[in-house]
Amino acid sequence: MTLDAPTVTRSALWRRAIAEFLGTALLVAIVVGSGIAAERLSTDPGLQLLENAIATALGLGVLILLLAPVSEAHFNPVVSLADAILGRKDRTGLTAPALVIYVIAQIAGASAGAVLANAMFAAPTAISTTARATPATFLAEIVATGGLVLLIIGLTRTGRSVPVIATAVGSYIGAAYWFTSSTSFANPAVTIGRIFTDTFAGIAPASVIPFVGAQVIGAAVALGLASVLFSGITAKQGE
Amino acid sequence: MTLDAPTVTRSALWRRAIAEFLGTALLVAIVVGSGIAAERLSTDPGLQLLENAIATALGLGVLILLLAPVSEAHFNPVVSLADAILGRKDRTGLTAPALVIYVIAQIAGASAGAVLANAMFAAPTAISTTARATPATFLAEIVATGGLVLLIIGLTRTGRSVPVIATAVGSYIGAAYWFTSSTSFANPAVTIGRIFTDTFAGIAPASVIPFVGAQVIGAAVALGLASVLFSGITAKQGE
Amino acid sequence: MTLDAPTVTRSALWRRAIAEFLGTALLVAIVVGSGIAAERLSTDPGLQLLENAIATALGLGVLILLLAPVSEAHFNPVVSLADAILGRKDRTGLTAPALVIYVIAQIAGASAGAVLANAMFAAPTAISTTARATPATFLAEIVATGGLVLLIIGLTRTGRSVPVIATAVGSYIGAAYWFTSSTSFANPAVTIGRIFTDTFAGIAPASVIPFVGAQVIGAAVALGLASVLFSGITAKQGE
Amino acid sequence: MTLDAPTVTRSALWRRAIAEFLGTALLVAIVVGSGIAAERLSTDPGLQLLENAIATALGLGVLILLLAPVSEAHFNPVVSLADAILGRKDRTGLTAPALVIYVIAQIAGASAGAVLANAMFAAPTAISTTARATPATFLAEIVATGGLVLLIIGLTRTGRSVPVIATAVGSYIGAAYWFTSSTSFANPAVTIGRIFTDTFAGIAPASVIPFVGAQVIGAAVALGLASVLFSGITAKQGE
Repeated sequence: MTLDAPTVTRSALWRRAIAEFLGTALLVAIVVGSGIAAERLSTDPGLQLLENAIATALGLGVLILLLAPVSEAHFNPVVSLADAILGRKDRTGLTAPALVIYVIAQIAGASAGAVLANAMFAAPTAISTTARATPATFLAEIVATGGLVLLIIGLTRTGRSVPVIATAVGSYIGAAYWFTSSTSFANPAVTIGRIFTDTFAGIAPASVIPFVGAQVIGAAVALGLASVLFSGITAKQGE
Repeated sequence: MTLDAPTVTRSALWRRAIAEFLGTALLVAIVVGSGIAAERLSTDPGLQLLENAIATALGLGVLILLLAPVSEAHFNPVVSLADAILGRKDRTGLTAPALVIYVIAQIAGASAGAVLANAMFAAPTAISTTARATPATFLAEIVATGGLVLLIIGLTRTGRSVPVIATAVGSYIGAAYWFTSSTSFANPAVTIGRIFTDTFAGIAPASVIPFVGAQVIGAAVALGLASVLFSGITAKQGE
Repeated sequence: MTLDAPTVTRSALWRRAIAEFLGTALLVAIVVGSGIAAERLSTDPGLQLLENAIATALGLGVLILLLAPVSEAHFNPVVSLADAILGRKDRTGLTAPALVIYVIAQIAGASAGAVLANAMFAAPTAISTTARATPATFLAEIVATGGLVLLIIGLTRTGRSVPVIATAVGSYIGAAYWFTSSTSFANPAVTIGRIFTDTFAGIAPASVIPFVGAQVIGAAVALGLASVLFSGITAKQGE
Repeated sequence: MTLDAPTVTRSALWRRAIAEFLGTALLVAIVVGSGIAAERLSTDPGLQLLENAIATALGLGVLILLLAPVSEAHFNPVVSLADAILGRKDRTGLTAPALVIYVIAQIAGASAGAVLANAMFAAPTAISTTARATPATFLAEIVATGGLVLLIIGLTRTGRSVPVIATAVGSYIGAAYWFTSSTSFANPAVTIGRIFTDTFAGIAPASVIPFVGAQVIGAAVALGLASVLFSGITAKQGE
């Protein structure tokens, strides 16, 4: 999508894969770790979610700011997929092999991040038993992911700087934890990674397929909306 | 008012109407959805409002940043009205037909957003029974809306960038949830949309007329204050 | 101090006085109003202070951003005093008569803001009975005010933009509510205004003199520290 | 590392030492002071940590913004050490004598800050009895410090402006309070300073050695990761 495109083309694919692995790992470590801390320290479930949401919003923004110059900081297979699709025509997007490598790095990173968070809190790494899939959360994941992908496309299309995009994406997820009934996973890699912790932020394997399905639908909705809303807009950096 | 005026003039009116519909829908989905989540997860009413306020402040800022290049991101009939009035002389404001279309899109979007939030939480769409109109909340809505409209006029007049305006408007609403007894609706379309949920953020129909009346008065106060405070100031971008 | 100095010199003194009155009034309305809301809605005193602090941090940042182009957005007699002292040599500071008008506008505004907040919450305007002066809060007000004045001098001296200064000052006060035992009044006008509400944010008249005394000492400390730290630094805008 | 390098070279070493002393003192005063306030005002331990984290995130960001033009605002021996190591080749880093002076100023400042916070809250200055060292917190401090040092190296290497870096570092620490089991000390000077308060934020002397050891390991990990991720990236200011 060309977050810092000139820099990105200079980064070798293996370096970008490391950045995607590390960024997604730290993102999941933040989500899972702050969830464990919240669960242990607070009793009110809303307060637990608030603590989890604030930590995630701040941490995600920082990770994007740090790693966007290396790999564009996708950390999310549907974002990488949208990048590959939108950048096909003018060859600025991920190629098919690069897409595969990005997604593998993201899923591996997400899983490692959950294990790391468990270890930091001396919690066992175990398969989550938290069932989350319902018709309401299915709809919520479509909305959450659609909003996220539309946001990323719109901000890159209108030429926003990396610090602005980083803050906006973090803020969006912070809000989406609250305005969706699914607490906004909005990311297939993170969804898979969160299988590996039976704590506040975990998700039972049986809920993963419907969640990921909804996320892909949401990304498709976002691509459609973006073509309606932003087709006539050209990037004007620093506007 | 000329948030990104050059871009806006390039956007067809139908595209701007879609942006206003979508933006207002998502704004109300954030307000109502986070209210439902807060109500279900927390017991302390202040904590519920804090969760609602943080989600709204973050989400509103992101929506303005995303959609300002398309439609100026009013999402609010009194903002569109102020834009039409202030831009009459130099023909940069909304024309009367465009104003009508903006307001229709905003009200339709707000209503759709409440229905969407209900659906995401498997809550029935029902007419709110929360009466909110009192002399104190009438005054509060004047102050809340007056502050909002003055802020938008002042920031555009002094040439602030879209990211700065977006963050400031979100922050203002986050504060205004707290410093007004009405929790700062400050928006006739959002007020109408919030009729359609009998949850934390709902408002009974009988309270809507006084709330909207106070909001119009507040906007008028803001126009008067702006002419006193900002008449000698010219936009200096990036100042 | 030259926040937007070229603009300021174009603003007539009466317009700057209105901006100082309005800004200080809204600042106190935010502090007092959010305090009343917090007190009514939450039971945990820490949660009340958190709600109060978040509303104040967001609201103060917005007010500075809005009104700095008109009056430099002091809203605080010790900030105006520091401006007059530091700008004496090169004639960029407030003159003595302007300083007097600024301080009068700030105190009148602060008092009006407390009355407005009371009215928005249907709370009686009454003299506060909350005694706050102790040796510990005396020290705390020195630190809080010293930090605030040093921050404003340092940021203007190093040429930070108005949006950066606005966010930083709001953030500072949000932190200072917590790291000082006095909850960081740090402003003689606001201290006087908060006499007129017998609610969460009020202060008994007998505590005002020691608080204001500590604030003046803090400002003096800041002037000394600033001359040590920033004497060799020249403004480089946007650095 | 060259935060504002041209300015820094103009600042005499004694002035930079004062800035490091003052900044580290105020940082610890914020951490300890807000911890005392949180402990006294709230009952839920998670809410206490949230209050502590928000105050620290906001306050740290402001301190970096204020003092970076004077001393680069390290406030942290491992950051100064990384600066000395990375800047050896092109002679932009701290020299060995300057490094020693920085570290002394930071440790002295941190200790003074704890004493100041105690005094502001009329709490006795006493050696902390809070044991914190466990295998889990040892790992957590490696992660917390590694993330911090990698962030600072990455943001300076990619040419981010001081306001962006300041906000990012504050946000990172705000998140790291939550996603690590150690609540992210991530700073040997601050760790030592926090010995001198037997309150919420204190640390027993026996836990200091393992914490500092983990922090040094974390910094080494960050240097390794940075050389992999950012070796091909050159600073492009304002990108």
